[in-house]
Amino acid sequence: MNTRIAVDMDEVLADTLGKLLAVYNRDHGTTLTKESLTGRSLDAAVPAEHGATIHAYLSDRAFFRDIPVMPDSQTVLHALTQRYEIFVASAAMEYPTCFDAKYEWMREHFPFIPKSRLVFCGDKSIVNADYLIDDSPNYLARFQGQGILFTAPDNLHETRYPRVNDWQEVRQRFL
Amino acid sequence: MNTRIAVDMDEVLADTLGKLLAVYNRDHGTTLTKESLTGRSLDAAVPAEHGATIHAYLSDRAFFRDIPVMPDSQTVLHALTQRYEIFVASAAMEYPTCFDAKYEWMREHFPFIPKSRLVFCGDKSIVNADYLIDDSPNYLARFQGQGILFTAPDNLHETRYPRVNDWQEVRQRFL
Repeated sequence: MNTRIAVDMDEVLADTLGKLLAVYNRDHGTTLTKESLTGRSLDAAVPAEHGATIHAYLSDRAFFRDIPVMPDSQTVLHALTQRYEIFVASAAMEYPTCFDAKYEWMREHFPFIPKSRLVFCGDKSIVNADYLIDDSPNYLARFQGQGILFTAPDNLHETRYPRVNDWQEVRQRFL
Repeated sequence: MNTRIAVDMDEVLADTLGKLLAVYNRDHGTTLTKESLTGRSLDAAVPAEHGATIHAYLSDRAFFRDIPVMPDSQTVLHALTQRYEIFVASAAMEYPTCFDAKYEWMREHFPFIPKSRLVFCGDKSIVNADYLIDDSPNYLARFQGQGILFTAPDNLHETRYPRVNDWQEVRQRFL
């Protein structure tokens, strides 16, 4: 079997935090930026009473449908499919209202990934792959292959995993 | 880590074929039974022009919501969770209209399986587990652990895998 790479969706293929910040700032008249979130999650950066608002955004069935695609993710992931077996594994069970939108988003933006290679899961220890590219140290800690940390504002202090800062660095590492 | 068992949904936890036959017989005035399907799929047993009808049943967003639970699956699976790490892995990408119904069905009938241990996938080679209990020889062939074939009418001639005929036999094998 070819070497297999599993790739996370949110913050790796999809700029979910970018959309979340845009919606939050619009509704609250704030100017939060990704830079302002270094080392902490959005939840931790907003007043405690706004946690429910963020949860409500993410629970909206349509939220994930129009999230921006991460720069270079389409071209680099397509190039990776020529040499590796690529699966896309999203922790979709956290917001089970998101299934349809996530599926349609993948078909629209990454049509070259067969639907048989999409995985909606919770605990990523179930993912059988050689590598997992993910922004979440918690998911990487459970993964049994080699974790690769994709940089996101809240993981900048994490040092346990090899890091890639963007899709060009994914290309350099794997191609 | 505890030994991990992954369990399929359709024809293992859920009597999907039972519902499919009931709906098909109702709409066509037929009396097809599971026994009449020995060694062949429902698709192969009905006139070719009815293939689209079966596909339409399975594509209905509500189809999977009220499927009967397989006898003894709840009590035995619950007992298994005391000794094993249980994941439920369904090839849901085949009918992506089914996500919500399958998720809600699992929460209703198997609430003791945490949502973090549900997996919607296509190719089951992505499932990292020691055992996979599944009625599909094709999925078992791709799985890298030990496959256990759960008897269904169309797999009665399959001989490549250890077989369990029902959930009591699952209990005998694992408990």
